[in-house]
Amino acid sequence: MDIACDLLVLADVVVTQDDERRVIHDGAVAIHGDTITAVGTRAEIEPLANADRVLDLGAAMLLPGLVNAHSHVAMSLFRGLADDLPLMEWLSDHIWPVEKRLTPRMVHLGALLACAEMIASGTTCFSDMYLLEHEVAAAAEATGMRAVVAEGVITTPTMTYATPEEGYALIERLHRRYDGHPLVSTAVMAHAVYTTSPTMLKDSFALAGRLDAPFMLHAAESAEETRQCVEAFGMRPIAHLESLGLLSPRTTLFHCVDVTMDEIALLAERGTAVVHCPESNMKLGNGFAPVQKMLDAGVRVGLGTDGAASNNDLSMFREMGSAARIQKAYRGDPSVLNEKSVLDMATIGSAHALRLPGLGRIAAGFRADMCALDMSCPNLMPLHDPVSQAVYAATGGEVRLTMVNGRVLYMDGRFLALDHEALVEEARDVAAWVAEGGIC
Amino acid sequence: MDIACDLLVLADVVVTQDDERRVIHDGAVAIHGDTITAVGTRAEIEPLANADRVLDLGAAMLLPGLVNAHSHVAMSLFRGLADDLPLMEWLSDHIWPVEKRLTPRMVHLGALLACAEMIASGTTCFSDMYLLEHEVAAAAEATGMRAVVAEGVITTPTMTYATPEEGYALIERLHRRYDGHPLVSTAVMAHAVYTTSPTMLKDSFALAGRLDAPFMLHAAESAEETRQCVEAFGMRPIAHLESLGLLSPRTTLFHCVDVTMDEIALLAERGTAVVHCPESNMKLGNGFAPVQKMLDAGVRVGLGTDGAASNNDLSMFREMGSAARIQKAYRGDPSVLNEKSVLDMATIGSAHALRLPGLGRIAAGFRADMCALDMSCPNLMPLHDPVSQAVYAATGGEVRLTMVNGRVLYMDGRFLALDHEALVEEARDVAAWVAEGGIC
Repeated sequence: MDIACDLLVLADVVVTQDDERRVIHDGAVAIHGDTITAVGTRAEIEPLANADRVLDLGAAMLLPGLVNAHSHVAMSLFRGLADDLPLMEWLSDHIWPVEKRLTPRMVHLGALLACAEMIASGTTCFSDMYLLEHEVAAAAEATGMRAVVAEGVITTPTMTYATPEEGYALIERLHRRYDGHPLVSTAVMAHAVYTTSPTMLKDSFALAGRLDAPFMLHAAESAEETRQCVEAFGMRPIAHLESLGLLSPRTTLFHCVDVTMDEIALLAERGTAVVHCPESNMKLGNGFAPVQKMLDAGVRVGLGTDGAASNNDLSMFREMGSAARIQKAYRGDPSVLNEKSVLDMATIGSAHALRLPGLGRIAAGFRADMCALDMSCPNLMPLHDPVSQAVYAATGGEVRLTMVNGRVLYMDGRFLALDHEALVEEARDVAAWVAEGGIC
Repeated sequence: MDIACDLLVLADVVVTQDDERRVIHDGAVAIHGDTITAVGTRAEIEPLANADRVLDLGAAMLLPGLVNAHSHVAMSLFRGLADDLPLMEWLSDHIWPVEKRLTPRMVHLGALLACAEMIASGTTCFSDMYLLEHEVAAAAEATGMRAVVAEGVITTPTMTYATPEEGYALIERLHRRYDGHPLVSTAVMAHAVYTTSPTMLKDSFALAGRLDAPFMLHAAESAEETRQCVEAFGMRPIAHLESLGLLSPRTTLFHCVDVTMDEIALLAERGTAVVHCPESNMKLGNGFAPVQKMLDAGVRVGLGTDGAASNNDLSMFREMGSAARIQKAYRGDPSVLNEKSVLDMATIGSAHALRLPGLGRIAAGFRADMCALDMSCPNLMPLHDPVSQAVYAATGGEVRLTMVNGRVLYMDGRFLALDHEALVEEARDVAAWVAEGGIC
């Protein structure tokens, strides 16, 4: 039986992330349109796939495209603007003043920069919460990336809405606009228990239900958040969300650093997913999320970078390495959060957290979202264990190929769907725009 | 007055690491032979330097070459061989069996692989402790890297020496062979308090004195090491070393994870340097070295990657990012170990730990060891703060140029002093050699 195939991709190693977690040597992936139609050894697939085009990557490792399940991509504008500061000083004196001056063009440029960085480091899909989110959606469309976007829900008026009702209407318009879009979808994302009132949390969760969209928010990011939540509501963040009826399989929580074993058990029972962002948690001094305990309890966990203002990079390869290493140091046990569970988080786990079940695997019927590492990079040799190389040794700079929906976005150092030279010029405009405010 | 200059390097940004920590925009570095002769703005330097050659890097950030102050480079052979295992199981079942089969060729290949990785990620100098160390020295020479090498001193007989006297003679021969060499120098490195007897520790320290070489060892790497040391000698590791008279300005200790405030004060008083290896400490589950407390107490601290078998990469850029982030998480304070102190560790601090005072700065009279980052990489844009980009956002994959002693070793993805294609083939031999032992 012939395989429907207009592009056949060959690579020395294919890490499938399928149910059996097969790693195929001398592998082949058949693609028809935006979908993977067959995966196997070259000897198995090539005779059956009468491909229009063959892309032979040779000494490369093909992986599912990594899914960045939490970011604020436009904050790439502020990368390195003010590091090593206490959180409130950083926000009050540096980030908020310049965010007040945000323009649609700046959000678009910040998102384009982030898309370029993610594409060049093997990320094929990201989720995003920010202001002027239609510009983020437009940047994803323009660069060919897959994205789940959301205008953040917050109690104080923003530059995009003055009342909650205006906010919900904005979210619903964005949702309708991208309904059925091949790349962009929307979620409802509330900011956090300390910035979004209980009423708005409940209303935004109800909106997510009406739109059949995922519902997400930052939760239990720090001990300070817990302290404030107890002071305001007499409950810790997870209990507060439970009391409002918000813990459900529709809900995904970002961070969950300060959570107890009982809270972890509750998240598992409710089917609520968590997105782990270790580098941001570290850099902001928030500590260590008990991710292995969450996995042991049956919580579904994805991985995200958070924004470049608090990371300061968006490489999911580096994030995987940090996730695996930090958990071992925190637990004092080198066997926790092994390489396989970390790759699962960055692929299948993140896809689940974003309610995008067609992503995260190289398997028939899944979207043709993939990346490939150049296995001739010195830091990826010799090859004893492909998953170890991807999780521990790769930084993202080894990416040779990034593909979304069967379309090659990046290959051998060249961007095929965005103008890198123009972006370099525009980044200079960004630096000047930030500096003009006299805040750096 | 004219500047002696046969090569003038121009770059948009020069991070000098000089006494004033100047960051020069539109900068120029004049080089004569192996030495930097002048540093300043292009406008200042260019008219005075009648250079034979000009290398205009454009949108690049020039930094001192990073100094990897602790490694076992030949262990790149075992990268990803067996991750996520308890230390003793990893050593006994995986590393020691294959190390018993080591050959000079394999050590040479492992060292070549490591040199290629370090050169491609901006490291210009490394220190190394292993077996068959003359092969590591030869690999450094062959690739043009600077190295401080040492055959490890350990109580049990090794494949290179049967008695302590044979070991000391070997170390002395290697020392004489590289006396006055422009790239390679030697140190005396004892393994650790749990593998090297008190007599051998004292004798090897005395040998270092006679050779006027640095003396180094692993110390206080884990709570388990402390437990064993107390059991064997009735003292914690630092106290044990003090009782043997080994804490001196000649001495550099690797790791120092499990150290008390009193021990830190003692290290400062004795002028003993420390090399911090955060990624290895994390991956092996050993925890967090109190580096900010050491710096506060006046201890001189360098940075190292340790070997690729326990890291699993040798990028000093990534190591800097991990050092800065992990200390904040461990202390619960985003303001500790700021970006400037981390860059100091990887340059000036490491140079001090290796007793190589001519390294770590871009300043007149210093060795022409430098690297340059491509500032058009998306993860390095926009540019608000050069040191932040180097410490937090760069992974090592952005390196455009690596130079040692004024010689360009790597430029725009090409190795100029090693045969990358041959190395790719040889890495396949390595994988086969490891697999033949039936241990992976």
